[in-house]
Amino acid sequence: MRRSEIRELLKLTRKPDVISFAGGLPDPELFPIQEVAESSERAVRERGALSLQYSPTEGDPFLREQLAAYMTRSGEDVVADDIIVVSSSQQAIDLIGKVLIDEGDPIVVETPCYVGTVQAYRAYGAEFHGIPMDFEGIQVGLLEKEVRSLCDSGRKPKFVYIIPDFQNPAGVTLTLERRKRVLEIASKYDLLVVEDSPYRELRFTGEFLPSLYSLDTEGRVLQMKTFSKILCPGFRIGWILGPDEVIDKIVVAKQGTDLCTAAFSSIVVAYFIEAGHLEKIAARARELYAKKARVMLDALAEHMPKAEGLSWSEPEGGMFLWINLPDYMDAVDMFPDAVEHKVAYVIGSAFTHDGSCRNAIRLNFSYPSLEQIEEGIKRLATLVKSRVRS
Amino acid sequence: MRRSEIRELLKLTRKPDVISFAGGLPDPELFPIQEVAESSERAVRERGALSLQYSPTEGDPFLREQLAAYMTRSGEDVVADDIIVVSSSQQAIDLIGKVLIDEGDPIVVETPCYVGTVQAYRAYGAEFHGIPMDFEGIQVGLLEKEVRSLCDSGRKPKFVYIIPDFQNPAGVTLTLERRKRVLEIASKYDLLVVEDSPYRELRFTGEFLPSLYSLDTEGRVLQMKTFSKILCPGFRIGWILGPDEVIDKIVVAKQGTDLCTAAFSSIVVAYFIEAGHLEKIAARARELYAKKARVMLDALAEHMPKAEGLSWSEPEGGMFLWINLPDYMDAVDMFPDAVEHKVAYVIGSAFTHDGSCRNAIRLNFSYPSLEQIEEGIKRLATLVKSRVRS
Repeated sequence: MRRSEIRELLKLTRKPDVISFAGGLPDPELFPIQEVAESSERAVRERGALSLQYSPTEGDPFLREQLAAYMTRSGEDVVADDIIVVSSSQQAIDLIGKVLIDEGDPIVVETPCYVGTVQAYRAYGAEFHGIPMDFEGIQVGLLEKEVRSLCDSGRKPKFVYIIPDFQNPAGVTLTLERRKRVLEIASKYDLLVVEDSPYRELRFTGEFLPSLYSLDTEGRVLQMKTFSKILCPGFRIGWILGPDEVIDKIVVAKQGTDLCTAAFSSIVVAYFIEAGHLEKIAARARELYAKKARVMLDALAEHMPKAEGLSWSEPEGGMFLWINLPDYMDAVDMFPDAVEHKVAYVIGSAFTHDGSCRNAIRLNFSYPSLEQIEEGIKRLATLVKSRVRS
Repeated sequence: MRRSEIRELLKLTRKPDVISFAGGLPDPELFPIQEVAESSERAVRERGALSLQYSPTEGDPFLREQLAAYMTRSGEDVVADDIIVVSSSQQAIDLIGKVLIDEGDPIVVETPCYVGTVQAYRAYGAEFHGIPMDFEGIQVGLLEKEVRSLCDSGRKPKFVYIIPDFQNPAGVTLTLERRKRVLEIASKYDLLVVEDSPYRELRFTGEFLPSLYSLDTEGRVLQMKTFSKILCPGFRIGWILGPDEVIDKIVVAKQGTDLCTAAFSSIVVAYFIEAGHLEKIAARARELYAKKARVMLDALAEHMPKAEGLSWSEPEGGMFLWINLPDYMDAVDMFPDAVEHKVAYVIGSAFTHDGSCRNAIRLNFSYPSLEQIEEGIKRLATLVKSRVRS
């Protein structure tokens, strides 16, 4: 394993006058301090002994109930028993790797792919097969081709890992047609699909699309959810839905990994959901991030040069935007120059298992202020302009 | 992997009229509800944005400071930078396995050994070498013999895993002389020692012995600590001290495993320590568990039959006591009969990688009430008496 490139880059970009689009943090202005204070108070006063004790490995029963109720309200068909609570969706990613991946096993991911997933599955010795995305999500033709070729050689992938909504890092959304196609391919080749869904609630434009989990009729989708983006990351609470036989294995693996998720955080969050705060806070996040994304897109349109090969995603939600630079530009080489210009990004190749996407960068718009976004994009555009070949 | 035997047994023993010595829970009467309420309040009001955000992978800086201060007060020589915060000591166990064990690697453990350790390291494909304990802890002569034989065949163990204080499950404490011997052996064969130390603060009789970590002068001891036994398990906060190069690897592994431990729990616990509550709550736990252990030992002395091969540990702290039954008794076969007698224990073989210790049982004295301990031991003694061969 190697130190996560994002973390290392973050250190470089912490100088106070650098405008950083490199992070992945929610805007702390959204944190519902008052509501959390009330929920904590209730957890300690009303369920003190439970809040401070071990919880079952599957998760605190009150939280599982509230999660099922929340998901039912948002249109999924879920009961408490379908859910295992985990210590953040990074743990969900890790546990799924732990139970499914043996050294050398092929898995299929999007290119680019969430860096924490690359890191977790590399540690289990997975063999990555990356399928390029375009602005409509993973390219399903290429997906089928790769899956067929793997299956033909007797090496069926352990699963296909996809973030369908406002993908991190690409900021694109898998179209409904492609969602259906992914499930058809999964069915044809008898594959498990791992749907990572941290951002779904953060849609600020366009229509909500059904999740892969809800479209699936064959019990072949595992869905991971988390509160890190819609409420706050400080509780480390996520959950997984999926086929019983995989969930059972994850429960066993979780016993050896951390026994159980914190009862205290679980019960605080359960009271928070029960009080109806979650939908409200998600609505506030949508509104704020819509504004920030709009400012970033407007600034890009205004300041970026016209250049062959220069394009960016137009996110309908989430926290990230992806820029493809002309082929001849190298975001890694350009990075020290960017810090000179007092702006920072994450290099695209941090999100690939094979170091590809060096001519791409990821920008975060959830954390910087509106003023910083405006100014930072100006700085970035100046830098890119200086490197465009005429 | 297989479902943890303890968990499965626990389900059987949840009938309301069964007195269970099978659990491993702290007594919830000790939970400092009021102090936790105050600490939570401060975490949200005074450090709200930090409490709800991601924390650094190494741990929240305020908590690391408080941990260093706490350990310094209890006689260890520790600074904040030596510490990585983890999501419970079960996660510490798991991460150490993740960075150190490859499939087939030999490791050395005590026989019997904490069940969560067996489960975690089995998942990484460790080859277990168990060294029998007696009532003074791991048998150091046998330890050296096994280590020498492994090293001679070019298979140096990745580490030796030991719980020196009030071991779970055996309830015995490694003598000072043997602690020094363990470190001499480690030095001679250039071994890493993993010291799991969840119970050390719970000494209710005899003198505190120096930890392996504090005795070590060569940087070859990793120490794991947790709040689960001295404060409460509901926060899932533990920490690891050890040589930089191993800690660095653990930080990287933790990134892929859960990114970071919950800032919220971390900051609540940090305020709790800062207010001086930790030492007070540990003192209360010592007093209560001393009483419970005393009642259990007295009841055993009074009710158990005299029989060749029947003996038990006399814990000086912690939460567990171990009974060796005569060789011809089988705790697994006896278990349904125990539930008939309305008393439950954990079978000894749950704590071994090879199914040995079938003629032993673990009893927990921290959770049941004084009355339950008295009555439960009577029931157990009746059962054992009925199986003694004259």
